[in-house]
Amino acid sequence: MASRYDRAITVFSPDGHLFQVEYAIEAVKRGSSAVGVRGKNSVILGVERRATAKLQDPRTIKKICKIDEHVTLAFAGLTADARVLVNKARLECQSYRLTYEDAPTVEYVARYIARTQQKYTQRGGVRPFGVSCVIAGTNPDGSAVLYQTDPAGTYSAWKATAVGGRNSSNMQEYLEKQWADDLEEENAIRLTVKTLLEVVDSGAKNMEVAVITQGRPMRMLDEATLAALSASIEAEQEEAKKKASAGSGESKES
Amino acid sequence: MASRYDRAITVFSPDGHLFQVEYAIEAVKRGSSAVGVRGKNSVILGVERRATAKLQDPRTIKKICKIDEHVTLAFAGLTADARVLVNKARLECQSYRLTYEDAPTVEYVARYIARTQQKYTQRGGVRPFGVSCVIAGTNPDGSAVLYQTDPAGTYSAWKATAVGGRNSSNMQEYLEKQWADDLEEENAIRLTVKTLLEVVDSGAKNMEVAVITQGRPMRMLDEATLAALSASIEAEQEEAKKKASAGSGESKES
Amino acid sequence: MASRYDRAITVFSPDGHLFQVEYAIEAVKRGSSAVGVRGKNSVILGVERRATAKLQDPRTIKKICKIDEHVTLAFAGLTADARVLVNKARLECQSYRLTYEDAPTVEYVARYIARTQQKYTQRGGVRPFGVSCVIAGTNPDGSAVLYQTDPAGTYSAWKATAVGGRNSSNMQEYLEKQWADDLEEENAIRLTVKTLLEVVDSGAKNMEVAVITQGRPMRMLDEATLAALSASIEAEQEEAKKKASAGSGESKES
Amino acid sequence: MASRYDRAITVFSPDGHLFQVEYAIEAVKRGSSAVGVRGKNSVILGVERRATAKLQDPRTIKKICKIDEHVTLAFAGLTADARVLVNKARLECQSYRLTYEDAPTVEYVARYIARTQQKYTQRGGVRPFGVSCVIAGTNPDGSAVLYQTDPAGTYSAWKATAVGGRNSSNMQEYLEKQWADDLEEENAIRLTVKTLLEVVDSGAKNMEVAVITQGRPMRMLDEATLAALSASIEAEQEEAKKKASAGSGESKES
Amino acid sequence: MASRYDRAITVFSPDGHLFQVEYAIEAVKRGSSAVGVRGKNSVILGVERRATAKLQDPRTIKKICKIDEHVTLAFAGLTADARVLVNKARLECQSYRLTYEDAPTVEYVARYIARTQQKYTQRGGVRPFGVSCVIAGTNPDGSAVLYQTDPAGTYSAWKATAVGGRNSSNMQEYLEKQWADDLEEENAIRLTVKTLLEVVDSGAKNMEVAVITQGRPMRMLDEATLAALSASIEAEQEEAKKKASAGSGESKES
Amino acid sequence: MASRYDRAITVFSPDGHLFQVEYAIEAVKRGSSAVGVRGKNSVILGVERRATAKLQDPRTIKKICKIDEHVTLAFAGLTADARVLVNKARLECQSYRLTYEDAPTVEYVARYIARTQQKYTQRGGVRPFGVSCVIAGTNPDGSAVLYQTDPAGTYSAWKATAVGGRNSSNMQEYLEKQWADDLEEENAIRLTVKTLLEVVDSGAKNMEVAVITQGRPMRMLDEATLAALSASIEAEQEEAKKKASAGSGESKES
Amino acid sequence: MASRYDRAITVFSPDGHLFQVEYAIEAVKRGSSAVGVRGKNSVILGVERRATAKLQDPRTIKKICKIDEHVTLAFAGLTADARVLVNKARLECQSYRLTYEDAPTVEYVARYIARTQQKYTQRGGVRPFGVSCVIAGTNPDGSAVLYQTDPAGTYSAWKATAVGGRNSSNMQEYLEKQWADDLEEENAIRLTVKTLLEVVDSGAKNMEVAVITQGRPMRMLDEATLAALSASIEAEQEEAKKKASAGSGESKES
Repeated sequence: MASRYDRAITVFSPDGHLFQVEYAIEAVKRGSSAVGVRGKNSVILGVERRATAKLQDPRTIKKICKIDEHVTLAFAGLTADARVLVNKARLECQSYRLTYEDAPTVEYVARYIARTQQKYTQRGGVRPFGVSCVIAGTNPDGSAVLYQTDPAGTYSAWKATAVGGRNSSNMQEYLEKQWADDLEEENAIRLTVKTLLEVVDSGAKNMEVAVITQGRPMRMLDEATLAALSASIEAEQEEAKKKASAGSGESKES
Repeated sequence: MASRYDRAITVFSPDGHLFQVEYAIEAVKRGSSAVGVRGKNSVILGVERRATAKLQDPRTIKKICKIDEHVTLAFAGLTADARVLVNKARLECQSYRLTYEDAPTVEYVARYIARTQQKYTQRGGVRPFGVSCVIAGTNPDGSAVLYQTDPAGTYSAWKATAVGGRNSSNMQEYLEKQWADDLEEENAIRLTVKTLLEVVDSGAKNMEVAVITQGRPMRMLDEATLAALSASIEAEQEEAKKKASAGSGESKES
Repeated sequence: MASRYDRAITVFSPDGHLFQVEYAIEAVKRGSSAVGVRGKNSVILGVERRATAKLQDPRTIKKICKIDEHVTLAFAGLTADARVLVNKARLECQSYRLTYEDAPTVEYVARYIARTQQKYTQRGGVRPFGVSCVIAGTNPDGSAVLYQTDPAGTYSAWKATAVGGRNSSNMQEYLEKQWADDLEEENAIRLTVKTLLEVVDSGAKNMEVAVITQGRPMRMLDEATLAALSASIEAEQEEAKKKASAGSGESKES
Repeated sequence: MASRYDRAITVFSPDGHLFQVEYAIEAVKRGSSAVGVRGKNSVILGVERRATAKLQDPRTIKKICKIDEHVTLAFAGLTADARVLVNKARLECQSYRLTYEDAPTVEYVARYIARTQQKYTQRGGVRPFGVSCVIAGTNPDGSAVLYQTDPAGTYSAWKATAVGGRNSSNMQEYLEKQWADDLEEENAIRLTVKTLLEVVDSGAKNMEVAVITQGRPMRMLDEATLAALSASIEAEQEEAKKKASAGSGESKES
Repeated sequence: MASRYDRAITVFSPDGHLFQVEYAIEAVKRGSSAVGVRGKNSVILGVERRATAKLQDPRTIKKICKIDEHVTLAFAGLTADARVLVNKARLECQSYRLTYEDAPTVEYVARYIARTQQKYTQRGGVRPFGVSCVIAGTNPDGSAVLYQTDPAGTYSAWKATAVGGRNSSNMQEYLEKQWADDLEEENAIRLTVKTLLEVVDSGAKNMEVAVITQGRPMRMLDEATLAALSASIEAEQEEAKKKASAGSGESKES
Repeated sequence: MASRYDRAITVFSPDGHLFQVEYAIEAVKRGSSAVGVRGKNSVILGVERRATAKLQDPRTIKKICKIDEHVTLAFAGLTADARVLVNKARLECQSYRLTYEDAPTVEYVARYIARTQQKYTQRGGVRPFGVSCVIAGTNPDGSAVLYQTDPAGTYSAWKATAVGGRNSSNMQEYLEKQWADDLEEENAIRLTVKTLLEVVDSGAKNMEVAVITQGRPMRMLDEATLAALSASIEAEQEEAKKKASAGSGESKES
Repeated sequence: MASRYDRAITVFSPDGHLFQVEYAIEAVKRGSSAVGVRGKNSVILGVERRATAKLQDPRTIKKICKIDEHVTLAFAGLTADARVLVNKARLECQSYRLTYEDAPTVEYVARYIARTQQKYTQRGGVRPFGVSCVIAGTNPDGSAVLYQTDPAGTYSAWKATAVGGRNSSNMQEYLEKQWADDLEEENAIRLTVKTLLEVVDSGAKNMEVAVITQGRPMRMLDEATLAALSASIEAEQEEAKKKASAGSGESKES
């Protein structure tokens, strides 16, 4: 029944849907997951690195990209589409700095990316971007902020969010249970990795994690750090399980 | 039967409908509601904030946007589409000020937005905007005015209006019963919140309310104020119900 | 059977129809009615104001618009489309005045609007305007003139005409019976209102009437005047009915 | 079977037809008729004025238009389309005069109109003009000439011709029987009116007749003249019928 | 089965056909015939003038057009399309003369026309020309040459050729039997007329014949000359038939 | 099943085909054959001249065209399409000479033609060229080279190749058996003609052969030479057959 | 079921696929294979040369192309499409050198090619490139790097990779078993050839191998070298087989 409303350009269906946008969201679901967690002075981005071939150099399939000194983006969905958005955002930041002799705010960047995504849902001759973005950064006042965009071109701010993949809603629920105000950087990182471990099978190797802290350059966690973290988390969870089986009335995740 | 008339561009059906416009109106109905109430010296805008995720920062999903010093817009429908209209309207206001060294009237802004929406219903290669707007502002003479636009590109002035969502006509009926001339600001706010409570389940958290008064900057009501208002209104309604069940001949809403 | 000929662009059907144009005429029929009556020194425009919501400000849904000092337009059909034509016509008048240092004739304006409407029936990528216009004005020689355009882009001059709505042909027949040469302004107004009352249920509230007289600015009749007129007409008709039932051989409208 | 060949642009059908052109010709047949008769020093154009509403001002639905001082055009088919051709032809004449400081020949104008009509049969994104033209004028050598164009963009010269309407071939047959060389102006007018009376029911009121004579401005016959002519012709025909019924071997039209 | 390959633009069918081109060739077959015969110092063009209405001026439906001083073109197919090609070719010749201060060769003109026709078979948004041309002319060395183009945009040189109409292949076979090297002008004309008489019923009236001789302007044969020729040919054929019935072993055309 | 993938523009089918390209290759198969044979200091091009009408001047249906002093092209497929490629290649060579003051290499020309053909397989609004080219020439170092292009836009170098027509693969097999290194010009010509005689019925008349030798202008073999060659080859083959029937163990072609 | 989502432009299917991209990947699978192997100071590219006709000059069907001094590209898929990418990349390198007076990094080139491929998946009026590229080069720091792009426009870095053809995943598995860190050039070449021999039947003739070493120009291995290598590898494998059949517990490839 939907078959007639998804051709040529993005048009409305009789019940007010934009099918091409919804199919692009489906493309995001087919991709891997991205997680963002806002802490007190920092914000953490983490992505699932799905199905890296044995001989592939994981560096170039990075799903976490620096947009500007103070803005970093993680994405879920079509990699090639995402790179187009990343390029456009980088150019916009440079152009902004040239015009205003100042850095754009993180929200400005998120809004710019969302606006670009919207354009591709309304004009003929193009298709929407099959990408959701999680955008993290720090503002001049030191606050760490976290935004999200989707194929419809909407953007919104979050304390913690998970997008992409078949289980993003489970991940979001997990974040809702675990997130707390004023997380120290260490705890924010731990929460990010724990959330990714909900969907990542083979541990530290299949994830990338970036730490954005006010006043410092963005840094990627190296594999050793991630491996140690994963091991620690798995030990903790093992412990928790034992406790749980010993006394099944206790909560699964303490 | 409608299936052939909604492709490619917005064309007429044999009975004179523009289906893409009607489907865009359907998209507005699928969104959340927006309410506008004109008082004596002020005009109030209120929107339903539907389904905010627990960790979402409600500030960025604002459905009430300042267009110019004296013009504020609330929208129902597709958020990403609305932002395009908001951006266009802001640019038009700036351009108007540069050209005429004066602010545009509120009606000018409403007309501009409506004209923009109409364009997208007549040209090929684009689809209509899936947005209805409620535009509030004050004119130089101190009068508070309220306009509304729809996906067809029509605009009109209102004393009070409700757009968007499945129950906007119930809300409109409620406004028709409750609205009175020369409402004081306090009462106009109260009426706005009462109207929103017709569709908002979980009270003050899920609404935004903006107050536009002549000679003052637009201000958003904070959550505490809204919570107090909601509590007061619910107490009043409880009271009313009791009275009603005590003496069922009295009116439900006094 | 018509289904294949109304897509994409306005093309001919095997029997020589332009379906998109005929469907646009259908859109005019779905709208409310507009009436024009030419008198000796004046011309009257009247429109039905259908289904104004209780809280709507009737001023902004005006279906009578001033185009230039001496030209006024009433329309039937899609309001948003009509505003596009009105804007284009206003700009053309200004541009004419700048170029020729003189006002365009009323016929020039009617021809311009019709030509604009025709363009949208022949080019790809657009649809026809869903609007019929009744254009009234006075020429430098003092004569009052009345024109009409339709979605096909035809224009024509009339002594009196009714367009739009399901009953425009009944209204036209009524005008044919009632119109006379050299109507004084008062009588022309009366005839306009009587014609509108053929389709308007709730009287003076649901109509707008404009009076265009040579050498004077166009003026809209206020509600009080219209109410008084309606009352007078209804009384007259009541009287006529009584006479008719008393002596059924007399004519219904004397 | 024809259904697939008439979409989007004017393409060939398997048997070499251009359907959109043939449907445009059908639109000409749905319109009223136009007649042209070439005399010794003059050429006469006549058109059927079909279904003028009682209150319509017949002047603006003129189907005979002056193109240049020495060129006049009558059309059959879609009025709004015809006006586009008329405007284009007028501009071309002005432009020709500016460039060559001389008037274009009548054939030049006919060729220009035909070429314009052809363009709309070969390019995508447009439809053919639903118009056939009869173009009359006088050349510098004093000769009166008569041309015809059709929706395919063909033009041709004629001694006398009838286009448009369901009975144009009957009218053409009538002209073939009645036309003679070197008709004096009076007789050419008489033949034009007689031909129109083959399809016009209500006589002089429903026709327009223009007389183009070398060295004189084109003039339209007024209604009185036409009424007198019609009366005279009808009397003659009545007479002829009587004779015919008296002696049925005589020719119907002497 | 062919139905899917002939839409919108000229595309290939699975077996390598360009259907729109083949349908355009069909349009040429629906038209009248054109014949070209090359003699020693001259080349003759002849066309069938099909179905001229009684009152039509045969001059304007000329299917033989002068392109330049030394190049003449006869066409078969859609008249309006042909005029477009003729205009383009004339302009090209003028432009060539301006650029090179010399006349283009006849082959240059034929190639130009063919190239133009090809373009309309490969680009989207247009249809092929429904025209085949026979192009005759004399080169500076005095030689008379004859070319032919078709809707595919191919051109080729011929000693004698017949295109257009349902019987062009019979005419071509006739030419093959009758043509000889170094035909004197008189004999080339005679052969042209004889070939046309294969398809033309009513003799000299329904044909046009042009004579192109080196060093002389192109001239059209007048009707009297053609009538005399036809009569002579018919007499000859009558004679031949008699002989044939007398002695049936002799050849039909001696 | 293929029916859906061949419309409008050249798109991929689910199994990775470009149908419009394959159908264009089919158009090449429907054409006549072209052969190229590289010798020691020369390269020979030969084409089948299929179905020349009796009165057609074979010169203008030349399927062997000079592109530049040192580059010659033979084609198979649609003649009108090929001429477009030939024109483009000629212009490119002139432009190259102007820019670099040197002649382009033969490979440059082949690459240019192939690139042009590719463009028409990837852009919307056009169709591929229905042409395969065999391009021969000599480089400044005296070497004779031979290239081939196809409708997909691929080019490749060959020692000897046959394209076009239903039997090109048989011809290619024949070349594979007969071709040898360092063929003297005479033998290369002989091989070219022998290969063409595999498909050409009526001998020397229905072929064109061009000889490209280093340091000499390209020359076409005249009919007499070709006839002598054909006769000699046929005699040889007759001889071979006799021997073969005498001693059936010997090779058919010695 | 997929039939509706692959027309006109590359749009999303309901489950989030871009069919035209997936069909282009299918076109890559229909092509021959390309292999890249990164060694310590060098990187090796190898391609399968499928189905070279006996008389074809293998040089022009090179599937390994130099892009810049330090960047070489091997491709799998449509040859004509690949050449377009190669040309664009070469121009980009030249333009980069002009602008920055420095060579672009290998990653820059890979990113540029991928971005170009992405563009053709999102815009209307074009189709994706049916090509996967393996891009090898050396950076200023002496490191040898290897990248890969696909029709979706994704790029990634690899230690060793195989693309194109029906068995690319088998080849990739083989590489995964055999590849080791810090391969000396000789061993990297040997591994490349061994991997190609998995799909190439007739040995050294049907492959091309390029060696890219830091500080030296790229060089192609000649046929003799490749033949020696193939022979050596086959001998080794024969040996291995014997050993395997003698003692079946040993590994097949030591």
